[in-house]
Amino acid sequence: MWVHTYTRVMARIVMKFGGTSMAGIERIRSVAQRVQREAAAGNEVLVVVSAMAGETDRLVQLCREAAPLHDPTEYDVVVASGEQVTAGLLAMTLQAMRLTARSFMGWQLVRASGVHGNARVEAVEAPLLDEALKGGTVAVIPGFQGVSNDGRVATLGRGGSDTSAVAIAAGVRADRCDIYTDVDGVYTTDPRIVPRARKLDQVTFEEMLELAGVGAKVLQVRSVGLAMREGLPLRVLSAFEDKRGTDIVAELSGASMERNQIAGIAADRNEARVTLTGVPDQPGTVARVIAPLAEAGIAFDMIVHAATPNTGSSDLTFTVPRASLAQALSAIEARRGEIGFADIVHDDAVAKVSIIGVGIRSNPQLAAKMFDVLAERQINLHAVSTSEIKVSALIAEDQLELAVRVLHTAFGLDAEQAA
Amino acid sequence: MWVHTYTRVMARIVMKFGGTSMAGIERIRSVAQRVQREAAAGNEVLVVVSAMAGETDRLVQLCREAAPLHDPTEYDVVVASGEQVTAGLLAMTLQAMRLTARSFMGWQLVRASGVHGNARVEAVEAPLLDEALKGGTVAVIPGFQGVSNDGRVATLGRGGSDTSAVAIAAGVRADRCDIYTDVDGVYTTDPRIVPRARKLDQVTFEEMLELAGVGAKVLQVRSVGLAMREGLPLRVLSAFEDKRGTDIVAELSGASMERNQIAGIAADRNEARVTLTGVPDQPGTVARVIAPLAEAGIAFDMIVHAATPNTGSSDLTFTVPRASLAQALSAIEARRGEIGFADIVHDDAVAKVSIIGVGIRSNPQLAAKMFDVLAERQINLHAVSTSEIKVSALIAEDQLELAVRVLHTAFGLDAEQAA
Repeated sequence: MWVHTYTRVMARIVMKFGGTSMAGIERIRSVAQRVQREAAAGNEVLVVVSAMAGETDRLVQLCREAAPLHDPTEYDVVVASGEQVTAGLLAMTLQAMRLTARSFMGWQLVRASGVHGNARVEAVEAPLLDEALKGGTVAVIPGFQGVSNDGRVATLGRGGSDTSAVAIAAGVRADRCDIYTDVDGVYTTDPRIVPRARKLDQVTFEEMLELAGVGAKVLQVRSVGLAMREGLPLRVLSAFEDKRGTDIVAELSGASMERNQIAGIAADRNEARVTLTGVPDQPGTVARVIAPLAEAGIAFDMIVHAATPNTGSSDLTFTVPRASLAQALSAIEARRGEIGFADIVHDDAVAKVSIIGVGIRSNPQLAAKMFDVLAERQINLHAVSTSEIKVSALIAEDQLELAVRVLHTAFGLDAEQAA
Repeated sequence: MWVHTYTRVMARIVMKFGGTSMAGIERIRSVAQRVQREAAAGNEVLVVVSAMAGETDRLVQLCREAAPLHDPTEYDVVVASGEQVTAGLLAMTLQAMRLTARSFMGWQLVRASGVHGNARVEAVEAPLLDEALKGGTVAVIPGFQGVSNDGRVATLGRGGSDTSAVAIAAGVRADRCDIYTDVDGVYTTDPRIVPRARKLDQVTFEEMLELAGVGAKVLQVRSVGLAMREGLPLRVLSAFEDKRGTDIVAELSGASMERNQIAGIAADRNEARVTLTGVPDQPGTVARVIAPLAEAGIAFDMIVHAATPNTGSSDLTFTVPRASLAQALSAIEARRGEIGFADIVHDDAVAKVSIIGVGIRSNPQLAAKMFDVLAERQINLHAVSTSEIKVSALIAEDQLELAVRVLHTAFGLDAEQAA
């Protein structure tokens, strides 16, 4: 006897829409059309929505007026209402398009932990959602909120909506989480610096983490890290245009495997350099300098320790975020006796340029090429740091745009035509 | 051995505030001051709040734009958000005044049944509230909503917020439910007709039901009926002025027991009269006329059946709400053959004036006095109906104000000075 089994290839997709996409009924209708398309293609669809643009600010302002130092649990009750409204409106808009759809409130299925006003998704009540999704219902969930252990409304921290969408997607074992935003994907570099920047079809999680970490603000770093840990592919795409976006994946596939070994060039102006001269050239020096920074919670980066041979003395350079410069200087000064240094100088007209790509791991020639290209243009390197998939150089800020452009061209990233 | 027990006389009070009282942070602050006063007096206080004035309309409009025929469960999700916001804001305002306060969402403790968009309170999870109230916490609950049997947000029908406050008060066995409104109490009659109308200190549930039923719009009839069944005293008072309001009670007490036997005079313009002439004077005639009205869901009132002696013929008069007049006429016409009548005439320039008071039950002279007073002023009575605590007369609409004024004076209700 033969048993015929028919299997249908359907994916479970989480679609996340931000506040600009939900600002008003017309835009909600256009969101609903995108949802309809995914559902019509046979996918199980779960939509995570933000409040209408401006609404959360309005609610936060009401809380401030009511009480300058307000109870975060009551704050949560007030601000969570914005996404509740858009979830209901999107569900009824989908129904008007003859889709089966319903909203689920955060308190019905998203368990959150941590402090009120800044909680994180702990678990998703998957059975309730599973039943709906398998029955062909589009589930609409207010982003940015859940229910705390004490049974109260908890919000997930402002701007954490990408991360909450990824957490919900992981909770329901989605095949993919699509983040609809104002931009149409991830680019090889900032198109404002290089008009011929190219949109990437694919980028790895690691590359995206480095791109996001040095200033590409398409996605929140936390959401990328979470997706990487969960092995959940992300897709970044425009909420307003019908264009292919960028897939963020564990490993490159298809045509992207053949792409340049460098995914992109990142530029970061948020750097300041501190140099201590006449530091004793002995074990423990770096540790003694870094300790006061760490204690003060100041992020540091790009440490260079260069000894002058046979003098017993050395110079030590590191970078900190510009906003932390004053704090860093005073933390170091306070330990002057313990550290021992001749002078302390700083420079906040510096910037960091980085090449990023999984190819760097296996090809040291890429770093060498970067230094050659910059040297040819007389760009001086104050410091260099490398990681598995990134090489960064600290340069004068007024040379940053030149550096990005020449590297973008040298690594073959320029688009055929201006974007 | 002696055991000393200390008992403190404290009341459990539900305070209900409407949308006008919650419109903006300044007004919420003034609501909070009233709550503070009740709490400072040693009472356990539970507050039921409406959405800010205008907010529910805004949300309803969004639903209409999203889908003209929207799913009531999604409508509930959207419109319930308004009270959620004011509940959180009031709780944090109370906290800023150093009171212990917290909001409870409808889904946390108010079980609702019936259809979405028009549900009613089924039960209140009293233990959770009990614990909070006994611990000295002021509980703030969004009015107008609860959780349905299927675990979803359910709203209680527009304008049903008085009723939901009374239901919640009954659920927590409150000693009293105070309804804060735009008016400062219940008056002996409409002050627009009689400037010397007097505010009543006390009125019985039955009197209030009759006053509300014939047009005094201070409280919803359903809320009064529910409070009467539950034996829960109500108080109606101004949200904006510090004045004694009106207590609505099962039995009059104190000075009110000595008051006039008539509590007030009600006027209702929403009446139309229908008369069938030449109706057979035989058993079953009234039933045959009323049946088609009942089937069409038309409320009828004041039926007068007057036979002309020895003719076998009679006239039958009844009243219906003006908006139902056309429908009533066509329902009767459709049964002309079955009923049998010579002619059908109608008049929508009629009105109903009523005297209301628990004294009527034991004193038939009050009705007689009413007819005398109206006769003196040449006011013709088209029909009369009586109940235990009410006598109503149908008169020409243009005589309504005169009738109310003379009855108000005749029954000793005029205030010493103009209100």
